[in-house]
Amino acid sequence: METKHVLPADIERTSMAIITKELQERGICLPEENEAVIRRVIHTSADFDYAKNLVFTENAVRRGIASLAGGAPIITDTNMALAGVSKPSLKKLGGEVMCFMSDPEIAEQAKKDGTTRAVASMTRGAQKYPDAVFAIGNAPTALMRLTQLMEEGLRPSLIIGVPVGFVNVVESKEEVFAACRKYDVPAIVALGRKGGSNVAAAICNALLYTAVDALDPARRGWQG
Amino acid sequence: METKHVLPADIERTSMAIITKELQERGICLPEENEAVIRRVIHTSADFDYAKNLVFTENAVRRGIASLAGGAPIITDTNMALAGVSKPSLKKLGGEVMCFMSDPEIAEQAKKDGTTRAVASMTRGAQKYPDAVFAIGNAPTALMRLTQLMEEGLRPSLIIGVPVGFVNVVESKEEVFAACRKYDVPAIVALGRKGGSNVAAAICNALLYTAVDALDPARRGWQG
Repeated sequence: METKHVLPADIERTSMAIITKELQERGICLPEENEAVIRRVIHTSADFDYAKNLVFTENAVRRGIASLAGGAPIITDTNMALAGVSKPSLKKLGGEVMCFMSDPEIAEQAKKDGTTRAVASMTRGAQKYPDAVFAIGNAPTALMRLTQLMEEGLRPSLIIGVPVGFVNVVESKEEVFAACRKYDVPAIVALGRKGGSNVAAAICNALLYTAVDALDPARRGWQG
Repeated sequence: METKHVLPADIERTSMAIITKELQERGICLPEENEAVIRRVIHTSADFDYAKNLVFTENAVRRGIASLAGGAPIITDTNMALAGVSKPSLKKLGGEVMCFMSDPEIAEQAKKDGTTRAVASMTRGAQKYPDAVFAIGNAPTALMRLTQLMEEGLRPSLIIGVPVGFVNVVESKEEVFAACRKYDVPAIVALGRKGGSNVAAAICNALLYTAVDALDPARRGWQG
């Protein structure tokens, strides 16, 4: 195989065409509004289960894009997700991505409260950036805390709820999705066990790329 | 659901027990040497396909652990994988993790050579750290370059070959695995389309945790 003249933009286009074709072969029709998000998650995982696992509140994609286009910050629960979110796109939109998990004050607060750093991170995020996009790819306790905070009045711009795992994960995602519907908070959630920081970053990027496209379609190159 | 008193160490133990039980239910017996790696990848993805996709050259796990225990550096092809590798474990072992993808010199070199930043990163890594562990979770071109470099004499400590995707990915993984067998380079590869930066980091961490355990079993806590 030849390592020269491999254009990432071409590879991405070909990959997306393969994904579209295989979704058709599986008889899966994606709602147009959610297609870019679902295809990008499959692109990042090679796992077609996400065509069925991902659920969206009404207009979640449209509202999420509008928030990010307006410069809403993204708060994540892992430094991996933070690393995966497209910085060039954020820069064009005037947004930023933050993760408080490694902050010594957060560790101290979590210890004091007898809870997790993820919970303390969400509390901090909600206090400082109540309009943020919360992108949760790891900790079910982060989602559980966001559910509590919505019950107390928090109305974030979007919740991306895609922790992965075997303990409390399925329940925490179902609960946050129900709370988002109840309180009219846009939500994109991967039901079931699957998810991860890579999935959280992929969903952020699908929304960011669309927001950037809307600024100027000619600028859309490969931003993986 | 209650967000207090949730101990990450307990959750990890419970998760691993669930994974072990479900592997048994599926009739999958893992070779003891490779079990920790496979279970951690399933833990990070909730995807039992990895019980079948992951292939290992003979003694790859034992040799990889020995290299990391000796302080071998890890070179990745994404900042996401870099973010996911356990820094406390590396610190205990005297190792480090590096990614050259965002280095302006690498971008310049790739442009000059008409290739990808991933290829230029591997060339740099092989020059500066020929004994490194290469953990590739994204770019098939990185694996293709490592295959070339092995043909030219490179003998890294371990190649973790787990890019995800639809174009050149399957072939690049098969080729690097064959080259590793030919040149007696330890390799852990996810055959097929699946993989990712999260998988690359999970494999590194499974090896790092075992290496740290060997230093002092009493110190093994939750290091997720």
